[in-house]
Amino acid sequence: MDGGQLDYSLRLRLGRDPFFGPGTADLMRRVDRLCSLRLAAQEMGMAYSKAWRILKEAERRLGFRLMERKVGGQDGGGSVLTPQGRDFLQRYLSFQREAYDITDRLFERYFPNFTSWEE
Amino acid sequence: MDGGQLDYSLRLRLGRDPFFGPGTADLMRRVDRLCSLRLAAQEMGMAYSKAWRILKEAERRLGFRLMERKVGGQDGGGSVLTPQGRDFLQRYLSFQREAYDITDRLFERYFPNFTSWEE
Repeated sequence: MDGGQLDYSLRLRLGRDPFFGPGTADLMRRVDRLCSLRLAAQEMGMAYSKAWRILKEAERRLGFRLMERKVGGQDGGGSVLTPQGRDFLQRYLSFQREAYDITDRLFERYFPNFTSWEE
Repeated sequence: MDGGQLDYSLRLRLGRDPFFGPGTADLMRRVDRLCSLRLAAQEMGMAYSKAWRILKEAERRLGFRLMERKVGGQDGGGSVLTPQGRDFLQRYLSFQREAYDITDRLFERYFPNFTSWEE
């Protein structure tokens, strides 16, 4: 164990050929909060063009819009999540959170006191 | 959805810096059945040296032996799992199977009739 405790890594994505994971969800949450894809990408240190490509590819794979332009307003518009996009995001976040929680519990069940195996 | 159904991909490994996954487990099962690391590697189309490195690295990270040389016998020896190795393999296989089963059920709960979202 290199003197450490056993742990595990879990990677959960939508799509057998993955197109939607924690990073995409994070991006969408920031769009929702900031009403701007540009600011959301900036906060994540991600190029705007990359953020745009990620969401466009997800929309293409899903077959519906996740985000739409908000026209007008004080700042001359921005991006907001569509109702369907927000619903999808919530489903993904719940799915992910429960999968991680349950895997944690399974891990504790199958590998209890693992460090005691060290010799 | 590209006309297809939504699915997901799950990757579960032991070690935050992963060192034990489905491939390692598969290799160990074959060693257990064939009593030979060389034949196990051969069946998987894997170089013997690679199979050896994978198991040695896992043993180093875990701090105990997974496999040992069986000396003598008609074929002049071979490799068998240690009792601790076999126990560890069983734990991993159960952990993995349950995690996949539960994630399947969660996925069905959160993304039911997903194709109906297609427009």
